[in-house]
Amino acid sequence: MLRIAVCQLPLNIENFEENIKLANSAIHDASSRGARLVVLPELTNSGYVFRTLTELEERATTLDGAIVKAWVSLAEQLNLVLVAGLAIKDEGLFYNCSVIIDSSGLRGWYKKVHLWNDEVDFFTPGDSAPLVVDTDLGRIATMVCYDVEFPEWVRLAMLEDATILALPTNWPDGGLPTEPTPLEAVRVQAAASQNKLVVAAADRTRVERGVAWTGSSVIADSDGVIKVIADRAKLNKVQILVADVEVPTDRKISPRNDVRADRRPDLYRGILKK
Amino acid sequence: MLRIAVCQLPLNIENFEENIKLANSAIHDASSRGARLVVLPELTNSGYVFRTLTELEERATTLDGAIVKAWVSLAEQLNLVLVAGLAIKDEGLFYNCSVIIDSSGLRGWYKKVHLWNDEVDFFTPGDSAPLVVDTDLGRIATMVCYDVEFPEWVRLAMLEDATILALPTNWPDGGLPTEPTPLEAVRVQAAASQNKLVVAAADRTRVERGVAWTGSSVIADSDGVIKVIADRAKLNKVQILVADVEVPTDRKISPRNDVRADRRPDLYRGILKK
Repeated sequence: MLRIAVCQLPLNIENFEENIKLANSAIHDASSRGARLVVLPELTNSGYVFRTLTELEERATTLDGAIVKAWVSLAEQLNLVLVAGLAIKDEGLFYNCSVIIDSSGLRGWYKKVHLWNDEVDFFTPGDSAPLVVDTDLGRIATMVCYDVEFPEWVRLAMLEDATILALPTNWPDGGLPTEPTPLEAVRVQAAASQNKLVVAAADRTRVERGVAWTGSSVIADSDGVIKVIADRAKLNKVQILVADVEVPTDRKISPRNDVRADRRPDLYRGILKK
Repeated sequence: MLRIAVCQLPLNIENFEENIKLANSAIHDASSRGARLVVLPELTNSGYVFRTLTELEERATTLDGAIVKAWVSLAEQLNLVLVAGLAIKDEGLFYNCSVIIDSSGLRGWYKKVHLWNDEVDFFTPGDSAPLVVDTDLGRIATMVCYDVEFPEWVRLAMLEDATILALPTNWPDGGLPTEPTPLEAVRVQAAASQNKLVVAAADRTRVERGVAWTGSSVIADSDGVIKVIADRAKLNKVQILVADVEVPTDRKISPRNDVRADRRPDLYRGILKK
């Protein structure tokens, strides 16, 4: 059994220095509740609704910057794995990233490949597969927000033997019904069940420059069953959601079915077309 | 706006001749309520839980048999498109099929590719892509039950410009929670929203030789929103579920996003691995 925490944070693009304080406080809180894997939202350091590249530049960090350094210390001190979204500047370009950090240090960074709406005006898309890293807790994959809507992307993580997908996200509220389950969480459930892996998604909250968020942080087990989901009555507040989940050891879903072995990749070539 | 009906039928493997009477009555009922597309469950002619190949042989039909002939007449008479699951014998082999029939005749047949559990003891798996057919109602795709859990398969239908996926299904109850939404319907919602197509799934009902079904017939619009879903308080009864849906004319989901154009197939090659 693995205890996971997803942290839904009211990020703030104006007082952006506060975001990391919020994040650090959430990590401590999650750890005190026994979580070994802690997931933070997309763009935790910066907020989301940039008006100019200068705003992004002021808020972005670097791989060898203070935030990653502090989180490596925290992961070591609290003996946990941290997956967090960060705006990162690297070799003069900006990326919408997810980092995986454990007690041994920064294990890898992933650059969001499928960019949402105006993100293309600010970020360079990545061109590498989902990051999958071996940890004490299992093989953890990460990608960012809209990436998860591309089932090919989750498949790639599964085919690299990921057992847990940690997903930093900022899910803008598109006005679709959120009852009984927001569509964002529905897609997480489907990704989990179709790949038989655990999915832990941390969303943000707090209306930012007119953009609201569905606030749908969620943990689904490898059957796709929701173990915990954010309370929509508590929008704009910090919510640390904790759940115990079984990390799968195989992909079996019936006596004679296995979501990996049952695939027919010889028949899937058409999927490479545009 | 297109009016669709999915027919949840209490199929019966013992008195299998009754199944086609039930189906025909459901088609008439759906038509009288204005449905132009009518979807029936998987293996409507036979039931599901075969004990022997002889049982399947007795129940299977052929492409030029009485059932398809009668349905072609019915489709012409009622001016509708019918998508139905049938056990079909062809050149000495048995297939778990879906047929698409409109007023002009049998438009195509699809052989289930991804077989569930003991189906491998009875049916030969298909080796062709999802069937996609141009009709007056839009480009209709079909596949059968477990196929829809392979997101690659739904993608192939979308990449062939399908706007509607009609899914005959028999969803055995695996004991997972069915509240607030059965997982089977959750995966339908995800398939719809990730591909921006309408999905209409017709499940069966009535416990058969110890196998129960979730009874989750559902119609989701191209946002993935459930327009109608079977009432679990009425298990074992006929339920004809009717909904009006918008058939999508593009794949746009935000001012600058399109679920097809945003794909990065150059990065998806790994998906062809086993």
